[in-house]
Amino acid sequence: MPEAASAPATRAVIGDSEFDRDTEVVRRAPGVYDIDLSAGWTIISAVNGGYLLAVLGRALADTLPHPDPFTVSAHYLTASQPGPAVIRTETVRTGRTLSTGQASLYQYDAEGNEVERIRVLASYGDLAALPDDVRTSAVPPAMPPLERCLGPADGPAPVDGSSAITERLMLKLDPATVGWAVGAPSGKGEMRAWFGLADGRDADPFSLLLAVDALPPTAFEIGLTGWVPTVELTVHVRHRPAPGPLRVSITTRNLAGGFLEEDAEVWDSEDRLVAQSRQLARVRLG
Amino acid sequence: MPEAASAPATRAVIGDSEFDRDTEVVRRAPGVYDIDLSAGWTIISAVNGGYLLAVLGRALADTLPHPDPFTVSAHYLTASQPGPAVIRTETVRTGRTLSTGQASLYQYDAEGNEVERIRVLASYGDLAALPDDVRTSAVPPAMPPLERCLGPADGPAPVDGSSAITERLMLKLDPATVGWAVGAPSGKGEMRAWFGLADGRDADPFSLLLAVDALPPTAFEIGLTGWVPTVELTVHVRHRPAPGPLRVSITTRNLAGGFLEEDAEVWDSEDRLVAQSRQLARVRLG
Repeated sequence: MPEAASAPATRAVIGDSEFDRDTEVVRRAPGVYDIDLSAGWTIISAVNGGYLLAVLGRALADTLPHPDPFTVSAHYLTASQPGPAVIRTETVRTGRTLSTGQASLYQYDAEGNEVERIRVLASYGDLAALPDDVRTSAVPPAMPPLERCLGPADGPAPVDGSSAITERLMLKLDPATVGWAVGAPSGKGEMRAWFGLADGRDADPFSLLLAVDALPPTAFEIGLTGWVPTVELTVHVRHRPAPGPLRVSITTRNLAGGFLEEDAEVWDSEDRLVAQSRQLARVRLG
Repeated sequence: MPEAASAPATRAVIGDSEFDRDTEVVRRAPGVYDIDLSAGWTIISAVNGGYLLAVLGRALADTLPHPDPFTVSAHYLTASQPGPAVIRTETVRTGRTLSTGQASLYQYDAEGNEVERIRVLASYGDLAALPDDVRTSAVPPAMPPLERCLGPADGPAPVDGSSAITERLMLKLDPATVGWAVGAPSGKGEMRAWFGLADGRDADPFSLLLAVDALPPTAFEIGLTGWVPTVELTVHVRHRPAPGPLRVSITTRNLAGGFLEEDAEVWDSEDRLVAQSRQLARVRLG
């Protein structure tokens, strides 16, 4: 198994891992949850958007009658910072197969007023209840085995500012998509990586919400530098991931008018397409 | 110009067309709008989801300080019917470049209680204010000229039930993607069409919201029949469309577990990628 080479001696399990502890929300009242956003999931100057999505995803899983996020649409309003936050959820509709909810995450300004960071609409279901039919024409990304891919220790520091999140992840980039790190971007809007959690915890639907927004931005390989803040990100979780490392492929086809889309696919160790996402991001020239 | 062959003698203009009249919302109070959903935009047994998106898009354009939808995420809750509806909007955040809003459309049950049909989160901006840079690797879909594509009059009735919307549209399908209509689906999840409004009105950002959900479902070409209700649809409007017919290409790569994604691209007559969308839909076997 390829993950054996990079996994820690003792693997964390789902429910008792760094990721589980840092995304845990505490119900204060029905539909109201507290969390202390961990500084361990920051990149450059803000809390990672995928981590936030997992936090909101867990709050909605508590609120709604179905356990698994099927489709989550997030609009990012202001940059989240490590520290206290409150999440307010609403049940929009419950049905037999799907239920829909809404959630907002707030932090506080200097005067203690709530400032909304991110708002999501999401439809939940039960992945275990789906029929097992697959008629897909999608194929996994072509990329070298994990052992031949590159982690942060293999190159120069990729960005200024915090890179705390890289210590939480097992992220090994396809060498064909790391030109940006040595000043030679390919010009193609592609990034591919093996992905896991650093403590060896296997993937579940909530860590898929993290996985779709955890790679360096495709914009780097197009030759842009600087910050590429997400305006909106929608992710579809299509299957419960099998144990083992994931492959994440992100692509940008259309950079125009100062915005770009970034599409992600996440594949599990059994060659299942377990998640798809698309985000609209702004280009801030660095 | 290819549209000349199929356009009516007198072309409707933006602001004074069937589409404009049927998507017009009347402000009853701040953030509250009335509309009578037109029976002219129904397909099979429900009001078309793209038409609904345009209706909600216009309400949000009135509520928010920015004019154009940049990214709209819609979760479809219950099937809309022709007739009265009320829309309630909320301004979530206003910024210099972008503002974010939320909107819900409600109809009424037999007892007169409001039933929520669809809820959207959307971020708006000003397309005219964007820089003109384009670094796209996307290319327009390969398809025959409009004159060699096929409309409803060229084949058998494609579906049971209402097809009123087809009278509102200039929709000419690529012959390579109409096998389903004669019982010989290609097996590939692809559909392509030339798209316009039947009265000749040119496209604008609101009609792009219609365009991404107006083709027959890709599921038909995969060989499925029956209803493919949208769970969630997110659309990015990337550029103001030039006059002339649009090309719409929709693709499905992953049909699994009773759900599929449907990606749409909309190209204008100047070969600009003006909109991208993705929806998650349920497969109900017919």
